[in-house]
Amino acid sequence: MWLQKEILLKSKHKGFHLITDEIVSQLPMIKKIKIGLLNIFIKHTSASLTLNENYDPDVRSDMEKYFNQTVRENEPYYDHTSEGADDIPAHIKSTLIGASLSIPITNGNLNLGTWQGIYLCEHRYHAGSRKIVTTILGEEST
Amino acid sequence: MWLQKEILLKSKHKGFHLITDEIVSQLPMIKKIKIGLLNIFIKHTSASLTLNENYDPDVRSDMEKYFNQTVRENEPYYDHTSEGADDIPAHIKSTLIGASLSIPITNGNLNLGTWQGIYLCEHRYHAGSRKIVTTILGEEST
Amino acid sequence: MWLQKEILLKSKHKGFHLITDEIVSQLPMIKKIKIGLLNIFIKHTSASLTLNENYDPDVRSDMEKYFNQTVRENEPYYDHTSEGADDIPAHIKSTLIGASLSIPITNGNLNLGTWQGIYLCEHRYHAGSRKIVTTILGEEST
Repeated sequence: MWLQKEILLKSKHKGFHLITDEIVSQLPMIKKIKIGLLNIFIKHTSASLTLNENYDPDVRSDMEKYFNQTVRENEPYYDHTSEGADDIPAHIKSTLIGASLSIPITNGNLNLGTWQGIYLCEHRYHAGSRKIVTTILGEEST
Repeated sequence: MWLQKEILLKSKHKGFHLITDEIVSQLPMIKKIKIGLLNIFIKHTSASLTLNENYDPDVRSDMEKYFNQTVRENEPYYDHTSEGADDIPAHIKSTLIGASLSIPITNGNLNLGTWQGIYLCEHRYHAGSRKIVTTILGEEST
Repeated sequence: MWLQKEILLKSKHKGFHLITDEIVSQLPMIKKIKIGLLNIFIKHTSASLTLNENYDPDVRSDMEKYFNQTVRENEPYYDHTSEGADDIPAHIKSTLIGASLSIPITNGNLNLGTWQGIYLCEHRYHAGSRKIVTTILGEEST
């Protein structure tokens, strides 16, 4: 069984955002899968996807602060500067974090750990909505 | 062909650990797959999975030292501090490294490079055993 | 439908290289897939794969400069030093960036964003050609 659905994520401010519900609520077909995988792919190079702690919002803001200090704006050696001070740091962060996730599906649910949630990492100050391609593959429950 | 198996990895000290054998020995069904993929997914946000050099243990200890100096404990800007000095660094490292691996299966074996091994990256000082979900998908040999 | 093909990438100098065409031109069978995934896996621990901006070459050179300054050669704490000053930094970069990509296939094409391209990140000064395993899984168009 193969299913694919493009999802438009609502525009978000720069930072790390928990989007598990925004994704899962648009994928009711997960319920039909006994064993499978969900691949989530972001079609952008200045935002990224990761899994992390789903409870304390301080984890998301600490993460944002960490990535801002480890990938700084306006480094004197940057050449790609014409699209704004946040642009090349956004590209670098997207490579550090990654553009896709593969999550197991078991008995109709994402098989995440208790504390795991899906994050959209928005690396630009004024981004629009973000396009995600979700691909579900697996064996249907009988 | 779809197979899924949850594996409990033995508790390990903080650091980078080669676990290729611990994983593969629990997945004899790989032998039956002609072409496929193995997805390995860790259900935690303070440990991570990567592929790296499988021969010299110094690579693992240098990796541990690198990640400790690039994601430091007790940064003055951290707010998520109530779960111990190693907790927020563990979350950040897990996003830098990632929670899952997809490895090709070819003719009954993982199609890894000669020097590639699977690492469990344990980011906490006193972690228990870690839960892994392995999903095998592929075409059976005839 | 399952297909697997090993591809040898031409030897490249240290740096970030756009290889979308070098990969796609060797995978004409993507045209036959209606819904699916392409997994690209590099069988090495001193080179890596990522997706990033496919237009301005300055993004690739800024990326190379960023990773060289965040993972330095000759750190006094490195023990794995016998294979050259670029070796342990190459291993660390490969864990930061990752060894594989999963890209959705939709109606016979890779479903990449407009600005997304596939990068080979070559972390060694004198590397040879690099082995990639591509695995295509999906539903054939009728």
